[in-house]
Order: sequence, then structure tokens, then C-alpha cells
Amino acid sequence: MPSSIGRATFRFERRPSIRSFAAVVGKKEGEGPLHDFFDRIFIDTKLGQDSWEKAESQLQKEALSCAMQKGGLSAEEIELLFAGDLLNQCIGSSYGLRDMNIPFMGLYGACSTMAESLLLAAFSVDSGAVKQAAAVTSSHFCSAERQFRYPLEYGGVRPPTAQWTVTGSGAAIVSDTGGAPYIQMATVGKICDLGVTDINNMGAAMAPAAADTLTRFLQDTGTRPEDYDLILTGDLGFVGSDLLYELMEANGFDIRTQHNDCGKMIFDREAQDVHAGGSGCGCSASVLCSYILSGLRSGRMQRVLFMATGALMSTVSNQQGETIPAIAHLLFLSAQKEG
Amino acid sequence: MPSSIGRATFRFERRPSIRSFAAVVGKKEGEGPLHDFFDRIFIDTKLGQDSWEKAESQLQKEALSCAMQKGGLSAEEIELLFAGDLLNQCIGSSYGLRDMNIPFMGLYGACSTMAESLLLAAFSVDSGAVKQAAAVTSSHFCSAERQFRYPLEYGGVRPPTAQWTVTGSGAAIVSDTGGAPYIQMATVGKICDLGVTDINNMGAAMAPAAADTLTRFLQDTGTRPEDYDLILTGDLGFVGSDLLYELMEANGFDIRTQHNDCGKMIFDREAQDVHAGGSGCGCSASVLCSYILSGLRSGRMQRVLFMATGALMSTVSNQQGETIPAIAHLLFLSAQKEG
Repeated sequence: MPSSIGRATFRFERRPSIRSFAAVVGKKEGEGPLHDFFDRIFIDTKLGQDSWEKAESQLQKEALSCAMQKGGLSAEEIELLFAGDLLNQCIGSSYGLRDMNIPFMGLYGACSTMAESLLLAAFSVDSGAVKQAAAVTSSHFCSAERQFRYPLEYGGVRPPTAQWTVTGSGAAIVSDTGGAPYIQMATVGKICDLGVTDINNMGAAMAPAAADTLTRFLQDTGTRPEDYDLILTGDLGFVGSDLLYELMEANGFDIRTQHNDCGKMIFDREAQDVHAGGSGCGCSASVLCSYILSGLRSGRMQRVLFMATGALMSTVSNQQGETIPAIAHLLFLSAQKEG
Repeated sequence: MPSSIGRATFRFERRPSIRSFAAVVGKKEGEGPLHDFFDRIFIDTKLGQDSWEKAESQLQKEALSCAMQKGGLSAEEIELLFAGDLLNQCIGSSYGLRDMNIPFMGLYGACSTMAESLLLAAFSVDSGAVKQAAAVTSSHFCSAERQFRYPLEYGGVRPPTAQWTVTGSGAAIVSDTGGAPYIQMATVGKICDLGVTDINNMGAAMAPAAADTLTRFLQDTGTRPEDYDLILTGDLGFVGSDLLYELMEANGFDIRTQHNDCGKMIFDREAQDVHAGGSGCGCSASVLCSYILSGLRSGRMQRVLFMATGALMSTVSNQQGETIPAIAHLLFLSAQKEG
């Protein structure tokens, strides 16, 4: 069962396995550098649906179905499902997963949802009460743009600090049986708000939350950045990553060598015109559930800190002049059962 | 630690205590039949803020602060905070609780959030990894009306099946030490969708989810409705409650004697002109965290099934012609540690 080794840093005694995982993405993501690692690439980013929102729901359904199939699991064998997304009232999840008939816990963690859902799935499996729990999230460029920014037809100009919402979904099934990757530990994030108000610079708003969580994890575990192959943030993008380096340096940690960011990895910055990188719940979800987890399974990577970051604002809070609170949840994933 | 006694029905070995709780409400709720049980009644339903959304955030802050004070607990002693609300991107919670500096897990369960957050808090405490976890949610009539229905100034006419969103917040602190009430068991809900499309008849959309969860709990535990003092649903209101009776009867259970509904209890139907009763996350939260939990503490009640129901739709899904999926999570609360 889980034990506490610091304020909301948990050590998982059973080292739950990520028994299977899947990532499904849209056309643009499929043209990016991680092309070979995705389970499905939808050239029709509407997935045959009649709205962008329904397409996003379909992405979640496809990702979870694919993960279940790869793990040789039926829906009956999944005891809990943790899911959420960016859409108002999280309709990506509720409509995408309603036919699954799996006990469901809805989450809202914005772009931190992949880490939050995976953390709760690991916690429930490690407690011994659950054999298999699934974690799912998604985002869709078109549903996010029209909800958070402008109608696509308007053709608004994007400043260089803006990130590009990923069309994609990732699903992972955590189990008490199965091979690598294993979930060793986790740290739950706190809401951090350092007063950033620019909705076109989410990376800067989220970097302080990432720095807070990562610093607490390193301090609670007595480890250093060089103990890990990779310290992976969700989607700080290029601007937020640089800010994270500065904040971590002030806390006594240089993470430049180990750090990468899902928002930097999913697109080719030069060729794909995405400004500050990818973003959205589906960004860290689809990078984790493809390139990263397969790397831990094959042994290409050994020890990874996965930390998805989320901005907890809405268009209404922004219009009311509020600053942008953010959060980051962390998981320590490994290729071997350690400790 | 928790153990499974059915598909997502959990028995909590430690019987976590609801160590303290608080409910804060607006003027109309304060004029209702539960007047004497609320911790604070705000005559100014803007709580001195400059927007309804900020007022809702303030409600959550007041409820949690009050619960911490009543439990003799500082924010440092709360290890995890589970919270969510109805507003887009759950800004009621993120802005209301950002200054607390407590590790935070955001949830979206619509009006089921009080049960979902309490269930996860109980699960985390029962696992042994956490000493204290808090569960918080809220709703506000004015922020909900303008988000989901019409601007208040429009003066839209409400049909008789419509429910009235409660202005209020409830907070409960689950602890491994403390007296009654105790959390004995819980059942996680599944998403149910029987094809209701009328957003002015949420009770009917949510009743099938409540029937599914309650039936599973009774079957998994081998108990009958008469084994409980009270079977309390979140906010089915008058219309949804009648439908629940029919659905339960078809499953072999007559719950009419034991059943009540938070949406029926919070307002005086005759005097307060609320049509089909109260609704919103804050409805079940403020009824639970006042009249119900105090009744279990004093011994006025002995065994209560608390089941909050949520409709997992959005204005966008409704405009796109979608039906309304719903969910209900259940907790078995008791005045004595049993079993």
C-alpha cells in the first residue's frame, strides 16, 4: 500500500505496473517527430463525427479501447476509470467513455490530467483494493481553439509565446500484475499562482507549479536530477521550460541536462510552425503513452520523472482580470522494480 | 486499507472519521428549513466580491476554513484536498483554494462532486498514506444560471420540472483520528445515459445513475433499504425522486420509506417557489455538511447512505443534440464504527 515520505509524496509499495498503454493522434501530430510511436493517426481529424467535440470524445474511446486490447483486458476487468479533459464540464470524457460501463471518477486538472489520473490509478491499485485502473485524457485543437480563443474561421494571429493545442488522446492501464514500466512514487501538486495574466503565455504561468512539485519531490526523496534519465514536463513549451530552469537553479538544482518537455517533443518547431510548442491534455498524454512508456518498457530509458502541468483558469476568470493559477503532478516511472 | 467487495464497492477497514465539517450558504438557503444547521449564512450573496464567480470561490474558502477551525486543524495538517465545482474549468475550486497551499486534486463530477471528493478522501485516508484529507465543493445560483441557462437580467421562465441551483458550499475533513460520523463503505458510480435530452429535467436524467449505484451497493453488501435510517440522494428533486422509486422497484427494492433528497430538503417548496427542488454541487454539499453529518454525530441518525448525483453534460453537448449522461457515487456513513 502507499506510504507517505513527505507532504503528498507517496511511495508505492507494490510498484504498480503500467500494463498497457496507447496513444492516438491527429494528422499534424502524426507528421511530427514521434510519428512511429503512435498507435493510430487520424488523417480525418473529425474521426467521422459531426462536431469537433464529438471527435475529441471519439479520441478517448479509441485510446482506451486500444490500450485494453494491447493489455488483453476487457472493460469488465477494469475496476476504476480516471479521466478528464479541457472541455467545459469535461464532455470529452463523459461522452467518450459512457459506453464503457466502467466505474468512473471524473477529474479536472487541465493539462496536468494525465499525471493526475495516472497518480490516482496507481494509488488505488497500490492500496490493494483494485486490480486494474485506467487513466485517460485528451485534447483537440479545434474544440479547444473555439472554446478558449477564437472561432477557427476568424484566423486570429498567434503571438510567439502561444502554444499549439495537440489533437490526441492517451490511455494507460495500471495493474497489480504486468511488466515495465513501474510506478515507483508520486508527488501531488499544489496550486501555484505567481501573477501571470497572459493567456498566450501559459508556459510562464505553469513553470512555478512545476518547480514547486519537482523541488519537493527531489527534497522528499533525497535525490538529484542526475539520478534520472529524463525529467519530462507536460507542456511548458519553449518559454516555460527556460523559466523552469531558472526557478530550479534558484532552488539549487540544475535540470538542463535531463529535462525535456512534451510540448517541445511532439512537433518539429521549424517545420511545423507551432510557435512555443504543443499544449493541451492530449500533448503530455500522447507523448507519455507512446515514446516514453515504450522506452521504459524496452529499456531505452530507465528512470523518468513525468510531471504534467495544468493552468487552472477559464475564459471567464481571464476576462475578470484574474491571474492564472497552475498545478503540476509528478510520477516517478522506472524500467525496473526498485527499492 | 480499503478492500473490494464488488465491482467498485469498497469497504474501508479503518472506518475513517469525518472529523469536522462545515456548510456555508446564501440568503435564500438560509431562509429555508435547514436554517439552524448552517455554519454561516451570507445575506450578501456576492460575499463582498465583484463577480458571482469570485463569490463562489469565496464560498469554498469560507467552508474549508470553517471546517478546519472546527476540527482544530491547520492547512499544514491537511495532506490532500479533493475539490471541484460546476463552473467551466472548475474555477470555483482553483481560485477559492489556491491560497491554502494544500496538495490539490481537482475533480469534475458535476453535482456528484461532494460524494466523489469524500470517497477519494476516505480512500486515501483508509490506505494509511494520509492522515487528513479534505473534500470541498460549491455552487452559486447566479454563476450557474448565467453559465448554463440565461443572463439573470433576461428573466427566463422556468418550467415546473426545473430545479433551483443552490448558493452554498460544503467541506468535510476525513481523518484517521476523530469521532463519528464514520465512513464505512463506498460505491463508485458508472456513467448512465438513458436518452433524456431535456436540460430542464435533470432529475429524470440522473435517476437511472442513482438506481444503478444504489442497486449495486445493496446487492454487493447483501443489505436492504430498511437496514438504513436514510437513503439520501444528491439532488434528484421531486421529479427525479419519483422516477428513482420506480426504477428501484423494478430492481426489487422499495426505498420510499427511507428515501429523502437534498434537493427536496434544502428549500420549502410551497413558500420558496423553487419548482422541482434545489440542485447544484452546493446542494448536496451543504445539506450533508450540516443537517446530515451533525445528525450522525449526535446520534439523531445511525446509518445513512449518501448518494450525490451529477449530470455530465454541457451547454455545447446539449446544443449539439446530445443526451444527458449522469453518474452517482455512494457512501455509507454511520454513527458507530461497525463490522
